[in-house]
Amino acid sequence: MADDFFQPVSGMDLPRFAGIATFMRLPHLPDDHSRAGDVAIGLIGLPWDGGTSNRPGARHAPRALRDASTMIRARHPVTGMRPFATVNCADLGDIGPNPVDAADTLARIETRIATLAGRGVRPLSVGGDHLCTLPVLRGLARARPLGLVLFDSHTDLFPAYFGGATLTHGNPFRAAVDEGLLDPARMVMIGIRGTMYDRADRDFAEAHGIRIITIEEFFARGIADVMAEAREVVGTGPAYLSYDIDFVDPSVAPGTGTPEWGGPDAFQAMGVIRECAGLNIVAADLVEVSPPFDPSGGTAWLGASLLFEILCVMAAALAPTAPGQGLR
Amino acid sequence: MADDFFQPVSGMDLPRFAGIATFMRLPHLPDDHSRAGDVAIGLIGLPWDGGTSNRPGARHAPRALRDASTMIRARHPVTGMRPFATVNCADLGDIGPNPVDAADTLARIETRIATLAGRGVRPLSVGGDHLCTLPVLRGLARARPLGLVLFDSHTDLFPAYFGGATLTHGNPFRAAVDEGLLDPARMVMIGIRGTMYDRADRDFAEAHGIRIITIEEFFARGIADVMAEAREVVGTGPAYLSYDIDFVDPSVAPGTGTPEWGGPDAFQAMGVIRECAGLNIVAADLVEVSPPFDPSGGTAWLGASLLFEILCVMAAALAPTAPGQGLR
Amino acid sequence: MADDFFQPVSGMDLPRFAGIATFMRLPHLPDDHSRAGDVAIGLIGLPWDGGTSNRPGARHAPRALRDASTMIRARHPVTGMRPFATVNCADLGDIGPNPVDAADTLARIETRIATLAGRGVRPLSVGGDHLCTLPVLRGLARARPLGLVLFDSHTDLFPAYFGGATLTHGNPFRAAVDEGLLDPARMVMIGIRGTMYDRADRDFAEAHGIRIITIEEFFARGIADVMAEAREVVGTGPAYLSYDIDFVDPSVAPGTGTPEWGGPDAFQAMGVIRECAGLNIVAADLVEVSPPFDPSGGTAWLGASLLFEILCVMAAALAPTAPGQGLR
Amino acid sequence: MADDFFQPVSGMDLPRFAGIATFMRLPHLPDDHSRAGDVAIGLIGLPWDGGTSNRPGARHAPRALRDASTMIRARHPVTGMRPFATVNCADLGDIGPNPVDAADTLARIETRIATLAGRGVRPLSVGGDHLCTLPVLRGLARARPLGLVLFDSHTDLFPAYFGGATLTHGNPFRAAVDEGLLDPARMVMIGIRGTMYDRADRDFAEAHGIRIITIEEFFARGIADVMAEAREVVGTGPAYLSYDIDFVDPSVAPGTGTPEWGGPDAFQAMGVIRECAGLNIVAADLVEVSPPFDPSGGTAWLGASLLFEILCVMAAALAPTAPGQGLR
Amino acid sequence: MADDFFQPVSGMDLPRFAGIATFMRLPHLPDDHSRAGDVAIGLIGLPWDGGTSNRPGARHAPRALRDASTMIRARHPVTGMRPFATVNCADLGDIGPNPVDAADTLARIETRIATLAGRGVRPLSVGGDHLCTLPVLRGLARARPLGLVLFDSHTDLFPAYFGGATLTHGNPFRAAVDEGLLDPARMVMIGIRGTMYDRADRDFAEAHGIRIITIEEFFARGIADVMAEAREVVGTGPAYLSYDIDFVDPSVAPGTGTPEWGGPDAFQAMGVIRECAGLNIVAADLVEVSPPFDPSGGTAWLGASLLFEILCVMAAALAPTAPGQGLR
Amino acid sequence: MADDFFQPVSGMDLPRFAGIATFMRLPHLPDDHSRAGDVAIGLIGLPWDGGTSNRPGARHAPRALRDASTMIRARHPVTGMRPFATVNCADLGDIGPNPVDAADTLARIETRIATLAGRGVRPLSVGGDHLCTLPVLRGLARARPLGLVLFDSHTDLFPAYFGGATLTHGNPFRAAVDEGLLDPARMVMIGIRGTMYDRADRDFAEAHGIRIITIEEFFARGIADVMAEAREVVGTGPAYLSYDIDFVDPSVAPGTGTPEWGGPDAFQAMGVIRECAGLNIVAADLVEVSPPFDPSGGTAWLGASLLFEILCVMAAALAPTAPGQGLR
Repeated sequence: MADDFFQPVSGMDLPRFAGIATFMRLPHLPDDHSRAGDVAIGLIGLPWDGGTSNRPGARHAPRALRDASTMIRARHPVTGMRPFATVNCADLGDIGPNPVDAADTLARIETRIATLAGRGVRPLSVGGDHLCTLPVLRGLARARPLGLVLFDSHTDLFPAYFGGATLTHGNPFRAAVDEGLLDPARMVMIGIRGTMYDRADRDFAEAHGIRIITIEEFFARGIADVMAEAREVVGTGPAYLSYDIDFVDPSVAPGTGTPEWGGPDAFQAMGVIRECAGLNIVAADLVEVSPPFDPSGGTAWLGASLLFEILCVMAAALAPTAPGQGLR
Repeated sequence: MADDFFQPVSGMDLPRFAGIATFMRLPHLPDDHSRAGDVAIGLIGLPWDGGTSNRPGARHAPRALRDASTMIRARHPVTGMRPFATVNCADLGDIGPNPVDAADTLARIETRIATLAGRGVRPLSVGGDHLCTLPVLRGLARARPLGLVLFDSHTDLFPAYFGGATLTHGNPFRAAVDEGLLDPARMVMIGIRGTMYDRADRDFAEAHGIRIITIEEFFARGIADVMAEAREVVGTGPAYLSYDIDFVDPSVAPGTGTPEWGGPDAFQAMGVIRECAGLNIVAADLVEVSPPFDPSGGTAWLGASLLFEILCVMAAALAPTAPGQGLR
Repeated sequence: MADDFFQPVSGMDLPRFAGIATFMRLPHLPDDHSRAGDVAIGLIGLPWDGGTSNRPGARHAPRALRDASTMIRARHPVTGMRPFATVNCADLGDIGPNPVDAADTLARIETRIATLAGRGVRPLSVGGDHLCTLPVLRGLARARPLGLVLFDSHTDLFPAYFGGATLTHGNPFRAAVDEGLLDPARMVMIGIRGTMYDRADRDFAEAHGIRIITIEEFFARGIADVMAEAREVVGTGPAYLSYDIDFVDPSVAPGTGTPEWGGPDAFQAMGVIRECAGLNIVAADLVEVSPPFDPSGGTAWLGASLLFEILCVMAAALAPTAPGQGLR
Repeated sequence: MADDFFQPVSGMDLPRFAGIATFMRLPHLPDDHSRAGDVAIGLIGLPWDGGTSNRPGARHAPRALRDASTMIRARHPVTGMRPFATVNCADLGDIGPNPVDAADTLARIETRIATLAGRGVRPLSVGGDHLCTLPVLRGLARARPLGLVLFDSHTDLFPAYFGGATLTHGNPFRAAVDEGLLDPARMVMIGIRGTMYDRADRDFAEAHGIRIITIEEFFARGIADVMAEAREVVGTGPAYLSYDIDFVDPSVAPGTGTPEWGGPDAFQAMGVIRECAGLNIVAADLVEVSPPFDPSGGTAWLGASLLFEILCVMAAALAPTAPGQGLR
Repeated sequence: MADDFFQPVSGMDLPRFAGIATFMRLPHLPDDHSRAGDVAIGLIGLPWDGGTSNRPGARHAPRALRDASTMIRARHPVTGMRPFATVNCADLGDIGPNPVDAADTLARIETRIATLAGRGVRPLSVGGDHLCTLPVLRGLARARPLGLVLFDSHTDLFPAYFGGATLTHGNPFRAAVDEGLLDPARMVMIGIRGTMYDRADRDFAEAHGIRIITIEEFFARGIADVMAEAREVVGTGPAYLSYDIDFVDPSVAPGTGTPEWGGPDAFQAMGVIRECAGLNIVAADLVEVSPPFDPSGGTAWLGASLLFEILCVMAAALAPTAPGQGLR
Repeated sequence: MADDFFQPVSGMDLPRFAGIATFMRLPHLPDDHSRAGDVAIGLIGLPWDGGTSNRPGARHAPRALRDASTMIRARHPVTGMRPFATVNCADLGDIGPNPVDAADTLARIETRIATLAGRGVRPLSVGGDHLCTLPVLRGLARARPLGLVLFDSHTDLFPAYFGGATLTHGNPFRAAVDEGLLDPARMVMIGIRGTMYDRADRDFAEAHGIRIITIEEFFARGIADVMAEAREVVGTGPAYLSYDIDFVDPSVAPGTGTPEWGGPDAFQAMGVIRECAGLNIVAADLVEVSPPFDPSGGTAWLGASLLFEILCVMAAALAPTAPGQGLR
């Protein structure tokens, strides 16, 4: 049960457009805050897009998502989960990047995540581009590889770009497998689509036994069936949930750098997360929201709604018998 | 059969971007117009958003919808209904609000609607925020409570906001039930979703027997099944149709103050109105379009298209055997 | 097998935002280029919107689509088709219009298309408004009438606008039938919807045996069933594929002049083209993208994605046994 | 003195965002209205852009300007002129164009303007592109040539475009001189700038004695000096005032088809009209506002403000000793 | 000299797009913070627009200005003032409004401001609409009337709107004079322009001796001369600086509810504040920024820049001999 | 005298919205083109923003500027210069960057520029962010240091960011001085403004004798006086002209990453370049246009207009007695 300190401001008291914007109106806890040790799930920003091969801007996402997330209320409409009442959640601020130095930034993220993990905080991080996932995994998974459920239109398993660059947002999961941070047998990638350069990513996946579910298979089988398989692949061990906003159709989420047409709608985009119930999600992220390509702010608002869905699944993993569970 | 005076300008004669914008290019009839007594269905604007708890702007909707509605043509593509040829329709202008005084505005709306109702005009009003529905109901339903079919993502049944405010766009249907303007047993609310503060609205609904159909139930059962139940709940008595644009998914209708992800698409958004055929809709409204959050004008154009769907159902209720009925 | 000269620049080498924008990063071949005679499929712009009855701007589409199309990669994700490797494709530039003279412009388009057709080039043209299709057909189909598969929300079969104008974007297919350019018995129009002026277009279709599939029928039967019938109607003879972007729902493709709500989503919008596999598409177009009504550029990016789908079908028609065919 | 019928709705009574939008909230008088004969100055829309050589959209301007003009109040802040109280002003609606036929449209405009002129109405027309000015002049100036004060960044004196087209928005004043509608000796063109194709327009101006004041001369000499010369050139005879919105700098008025950097700011843009006091402006227009390129609506609002300035000058010409004149 | 606790985060350390957005990256001090008593100048948000007669949205300004203000650095480029180093500045959060109850909101603002004033905090408040200024003055000036320097395009001295409403954003300064909160002899209003309903505001000003400087006088005399007079009018007593963003030309600051063309540019908009050096500004505000009408965020960024200018003047009033003063 | 091959397409022949977009509609000459050796001035894109400390997006500028530049015509309106007729100009395409590797990208730019310089081509490059200037200088100025005229709101003379990063867009001119690429005694920086972190840049400038002209001095003295001094500082030796779009006021040029209010308007922005007549500009650039922050495209269009101004000055330096010189 979360204590009062960790309750967000209610829109019934202070209108949702008012007040300083933190993730979901939670308290902001810098690292040196006296309650920093009491956090169960920490929302944390990774404002960096230095791995972007195409259109930039994801560095602006944490702030835009904080703003939009002030429209989130306390209770999940379907499961009844009240995550803020169930476990201690907080906004841990951003991990300061070095916008012009990838190596420095990756090290900063890894170090901070490792510290949080050492304290037992489960991070829900907000990118930034998808390369941000790699240092998070490095900070978390040195001990043993994690399972992965990835919602994305791209596999991000490519070997290199631009004549040899291996640290782009097209490569993180290949690197994570190579570094032993992820267990290929427990990896599932859902929603893959879009025109292709070649099959280098597919070959890697096949060679390592990574399960790829294309968008055609996704729609043909339906969410329930696909997600049942996904849960089976990932199993009961600790797992990472990574959600690239370009999983969603560009009509719903235009604010991203490399959109691919033909993805799920918003109802489906939220539904797949609900179907992760029961997985032991020890960390998660939402990446690739690019506010400069989101003039109406709709993608940020969708991202905030997805963050809440992820948070509910993470809270349920920590408190599977909490009274918040189950719809009254 | 409508007479010539009430025919809209055709886009075949005057291009649709030309001319002064009235609702669907209908004649504008101020209250003192000589033909004011001959109107069967009056489209009327309620440019007021003083009940808005979150993002404002619905005060601008009537004008934006007039502009967009000049792209509407004469005939329904599925039912063949030609509403302008079937009953006398007109644009009655706006009810002038007092932007800084809710009580004054509510009284102005109620008085004008009561006058129209007294003349036998069936109002199709264009908000404004959802609180506008309350004075319309007061103007219409003093005699006996109406049934209600509501398309919305929120129940608007909450007790109070901001430490006691009961006249916000989150409260009108609770007030309408309390005032005896609506018959709870004949109320159905369709599309409800989004994170929740608490269950105060649901408790009220359960206590009064108001039927709530969540978006999950809506999608699981399908439109035909859900709407068959809706027609049964509402029955054959006089009924009010209220359409909050936030019923529709924000990817389709971003221009609204409190969007909730995971709603119906445009085909479904129009389809549910067609399924109201047979109900005795004596008045209706479309509310919560907020043009400042609709930079492309798409939400206004959808709103205009929905207004035409509602108008066709209202015309059919008045002229069930009109020659316009039935697709050739 | 296409030769090296005709290969597009890869985003793995040069980032997709870099370089001069040609269609899909293909080489630009003016008419006098030494390789002009080796082109199998020529992408060509028709920047003209002088037949527009409502909102203009389609004249800007070829440039916007070139820009967006630089995000297209080499290989189709489902069929495995690699069109650039299979047949020689090129960007042939634009056919220069006379923005203030319809007759002059129509003649310029017809002449240039006839020249290309004489060389054996199959044109994939990019409008422009839908009236552009008429001179393309005139340039192509003098010898014998073509079949037609049309994706559109309007039939464009109307007799006249504005008191007698017959050369608008609402009339091209009526003119094409009257001129013997299209074979009515091999014409299918898919996705028709929206409010109607009258039934003049439907009467013409019925009188000539043109098959109209409304959006209601489309959704009720499903893509596979509808497209099977479409292939049967069009048969194995030479056929034209015309894709009006307003076929797609305005939430997905807002950037067009006469949007109609209730159309297919992006997955369906691409899927119907894939279902044209097997047809002998000898020429095609994508029309009515209007960049001034597409501030986010999303409609242009969808248009580019649709162009690639069409290109793959055209390439397959030319090289049905190419190694690119079939998903590995 | 204007009578009560012709008074606009006050924003003190009905908020400015409410009500059906007519120019400056004036009464709408169709041609057959009983008071049509009492109008002194008629605001009239010309929603046509068929002469546009570059970016289209001016057809949408009359409606956008009506909407924006509802923010105009009753009294000029500097001169004290109250035009609506001084002379009978009205919104005469739009002259219906034929969007696909220039000759037809030009004839429609000329005929209607001639009718109004015959009744003694002084037209203040709202384009539309600059070619609209030509038929207005034809309708007005058959009897004797008018003087002209033109605010513009282009001379619109070119001989032909696109291999011979003489009816574009780059040619109207050359045609008007050739047709004897304007007196070259009483013509002044102010604000001319931008890169040039050649000097064909300047040669024509020099040959006919038309005075061109470039933007460099405008800024160097200052408004007062330039406008004193302008008044001298135009003299006391009947004159036409034509205001192309691209006279104004694109930072102030981006919503136009052919913007040229380096123009006046808003204070200057209004000031030059005030300096036309004393001229006998018998007709005027504001042209080339293009709403699709004006997403924020700012150019429309500036256009409405300029229309009010022009209206005040026209009213003063009709009632030079009206009590409204002179600042209290 | 400010202490370390009150120093903002530097963009040299943490990029300006990163981190939780507070005003100018200052520490956020809720009322119960242990250092709340040490604040000299408190930036505070008033997210309320319930007094708006025209276009709403100023309720969103405090959050938008916090976001934009993270681009502000430490030192004034002209005066050399380093306000954060000179006096203790902090972000005090927002005063929670009641969006549907004006009386309640005005009371909340008055109470909180009075509390701050009682502690010796000088408030720099960020509206909200201009009616917000009234309760701030009530909270501050019960003891004795203040002088006023107002930058605005409207006098806000009107008696009533909409048939009697006196609490709108068009009335606050009339109320403040009537309530004795401001000393009319020490009031100066600069930049007044725009069309007028009548002269009721000017009559009131003349009757009370309030100095109005129109924009014409402003430009004719120049900033230095006008501001010298302004300083003389206001004198050395405690004064309030109120800055309505609609003082600035709409080309520079489009994001406001009632724009009037012909105002100062950005250089002048900042310059007039610098010319307030020497005045004893005990409180100030920036009002009427409306983010829904500011899609590009430019008005918010200008507002943040103006806030910094005001803050420098307020800091100088508190520490006239601080080492930060004077350009090195 | 330029030959026919190098003439741009005229808008009199092909409308300006048509055709493939190259800089100013010039021929595109890849490095291996047969005429590559005949180019006098080469426009070349540098689509890279990896040195950006704040808001990204300048990587998209070359393409946006190509698009906008198709509105440029042949002749300068004031000087009469016809650059394309005077010297051979061409679009050399883009230098392909490595978006995720700064060192690699800097090397690519330097190498290509050195090659061009070796051939005698004078480059007019289009960034990209301001760090792009550094490798251009390295490619050009190994032999001897150049003079510099910089239009900018920032000095870009800072030592380091983010704890030691020296390769950001805030550092290039410090690096260039340190590397001996620029001669400090011949450097002038014009338009400097905005809040400051500290005075590290000013100290460096003072120590090296670099002339900084703040925006306050610029406006106080006027363009003619300031630019006379600038010409004197730079002298007659070879000089580099660097134009950062943030020199211009953000109301005019919002599309940039680090805007500072209070800059020149468009007339002044172009005028300062004209005042560089007589300088021996051997290379130049325009940097920091960021299309994602330029939704209306206005900044790109201004940038294209500034490029033309620069091109005219560069052409005049090569052909001081060309017949194009001097206004007829």
